[in-house]
Amino acid sequence: MNRINALKQSAFKNDKLNYFLVLNSANLTYFTSFPGATALLIPEQGESILYVSAVNYEQAEAETSGLTVELLKRGENLMEKIAKRTASKKTGKLAVDSLPIESWRALAKAFGGEEKLEPANNFIREMRKIKDQQEIQSIREACTLTSEGMHVAFETIKPGIKEKQLAAEIEYAMRKKGSDGTGFDTIIASGASSAFPHGSCSDRTIQEGDLVVVDLGATYNFYRSDMTRTFTAGKPSQKQRKIYETVKLAHQRAFEAIKPNSPAREIDAAARQIIEAAGYGEFFVHNLGHGVGLEIHEAPILSPDSKDTLAAGNVVTDEPGIYLPGYGGVRIEDTVLITQSGAEKLTLGPYALANAP
Amino acid sequence: MNRINALKQSAFKNDKLNYFLVLNSANLTYFTSFPGATALLIPEQGESILYVSAVNYEQAEAETSGLTVELLKRGENLMEKIAKRTASKKTGKLAVDSLPIESWRALAKAFGGEEKLEPANNFIREMRKIKDQQEIQSIREACTLTSEGMHVAFETIKPGIKEKQLAAEIEYAMRKKGSDGTGFDTIIASGASSAFPHGSCSDRTIQEGDLVVVDLGATYNFYRSDMTRTFTAGKPSQKQRKIYETVKLAHQRAFEAIKPNSPAREIDAAARQIIEAAGYGEFFVHNLGHGVGLEIHEAPILSPDSKDTLAAGNVVTDEPGIYLPGYGGVRIEDTVLITQSGAEKLTLGPYALANAP
Repeated sequence: MNRINALKQSAFKNDKLNYFLVLNSANLTYFTSFPGATALLIPEQGESILYVSAVNYEQAEAETSGLTVELLKRGENLMEKIAKRTASKKTGKLAVDSLPIESWRALAKAFGGEEKLEPANNFIREMRKIKDQQEIQSIREACTLTSEGMHVAFETIKPGIKEKQLAAEIEYAMRKKGSDGTGFDTIIASGASSAFPHGSCSDRTIQEGDLVVVDLGATYNFYRSDMTRTFTAGKPSQKQRKIYETVKLAHQRAFEAIKPNSPAREIDAAARQIIEAAGYGEFFVHNLGHGVGLEIHEAPILSPDSKDTLAAGNVVTDEPGIYLPGYGGVRIEDTVLITQSGAEKLTLGPYALANAP
Repeated sequence: MNRINALKQSAFKNDKLNYFLVLNSANLTYFTSFPGATALLIPEQGESILYVSAVNYEQAEAETSGLTVELLKRGENLMEKIAKRTASKKTGKLAVDSLPIESWRALAKAFGGEEKLEPANNFIREMRKIKDQQEIQSIREACTLTSEGMHVAFETIKPGIKEKQLAAEIEYAMRKKGSDGTGFDTIIASGASSAFPHGSCSDRTIQEGDLVVVDLGATYNFYRSDMTRTFTAGKPSQKQRKIYETVKLAHQRAFEAIKPNSPAREIDAAARQIIEAAGYGEFFVHNLGHGVGLEIHEAPILSPDSKDTLAAGNVVTDEPGIYLPGYGGVRIEDTVLITQSGAEKLTLGPYALANAP
């Protein structure tokens, strides 16, 4: 329960807050390692209460510890239960991580006014940016599985195979090695659709000369990974090589710039400068990267307008790309752990454009 | 754009509403068949505007039609853009489907007050309950893929195989047949963990005599399916048979009760009565079923306290279960289409407890 104690220390420094209500699914998993709860109520003093409906109650009792597991019965109103539970602390506010407007209003009604509530997801966002050893171990394993999946992609891509068929082989290889599932919907985008950063994985048959963007992730013990390589089916053209080498250099320069205390926007700039200098600036249409953890996109953000500062324990992607509409695209991505001294790539695999000479 | 027109007809009957803002990801896919947009603004009159950031802009232009695709530039404030766009209609309100409290406040600020906004997801919830032919076709395909996956489960389960290994074989079979991915995280829960309705898929090796709950889904063209069978590894015991036959009868009675205009809670009751009569009432710890479509859980809900009434075009699950803590559980589930005259099972497969005589 170290994470709950850490939240108490950061959130309850603020004298106005007496309780923290966690409702977001990834946040619930973060604090309890159990994905089936409805809510977690963390008081300033004493044991936290995990509210679980009947369908997951027995499992919550078996799989959590250090918490009071409370059954949320059919027809019971969670918001009113929480209001009753916290009624003795009338002076302070209830911090909540995030909830839709309808639930916010129900909670405000149960508490007798919006002024008793404080949206406070930022405390948890900041905590989740810094991964502990257990989280890093899970992400490392997810990354290893992904590197193995990418190896299968590299070996399997050839003219004549369908995008979905390739995805099937990659995902099967990761699953057999122990993946709990994909980290997100696998992207295999070939030919002109590789110019769409989120080109979907279709029944299209990969053609000789295509660029093929392969963007993969695994999940392990709730934690995710993210990795992209771009290959050609057959021998690359001179133009494909030029785009590829530009992206590869941008990716490398960003990686070299990553270190604790760097403003995240400077890492984005290190990559963006290379792509702009090569004349492709307008075709790098997304951020350099994002945090990875329980969610595939989380803090910190590596973008031109990011306000995040990097710190040891962050896990982020380094993923520049160039996308030429109607022609095709190239992206290279690794998941990177920020260490005390710099950075370590957690996804590993050759930066090879083609699997044939 | 028939779905957008249908929303206009239902939502703008209410004279107070002039615009509908769609922000929820599944709702965006529902109206545009494109999953990469940030927001869709539907005016009472004229063409709708799809806001898309640079990363997905080219793809939105290529893959949507009948909409104005507007680039959401880096640093632009979506809420202010929308407030400006709708400024000529000062008299009416902006309906929004659903958004977190922080975004609600930003939107209210841009609009000059909360009273200009109306949470109105209910209009879309009601529409999405009734699937059109195109949606039914996609769900039917997802269900066919899932039935094929379940056949692989039936053939593959034996003492000595690990839960995750079984999941790998099932998912691979569905993917090779054309699945776009799983509909949700596959559940393979064996032995005592089969008593957890959401028991996860672990490295546990399936043992002779285990109950094994296999809960599967596929995704096809954004639409999902949901199916459960329970098998024994080896020959079932008398107790296992008794539980199984009770669940099977409950499942069948519910299926027979499904027809348009039935209150959903009566379908739940049809199954629950059978399980209660057999003395297992307290061990049926969840609702009978839920709608399936773009999301794995959507309207209508089949539960004792549901307010939904069934209608032709609904797609729902029929999934009673009995879960004995420490012993094991049984669940049988099909995805069912409600037709003009009754109901049709979209997932097909034998209700066999064991693959060995």
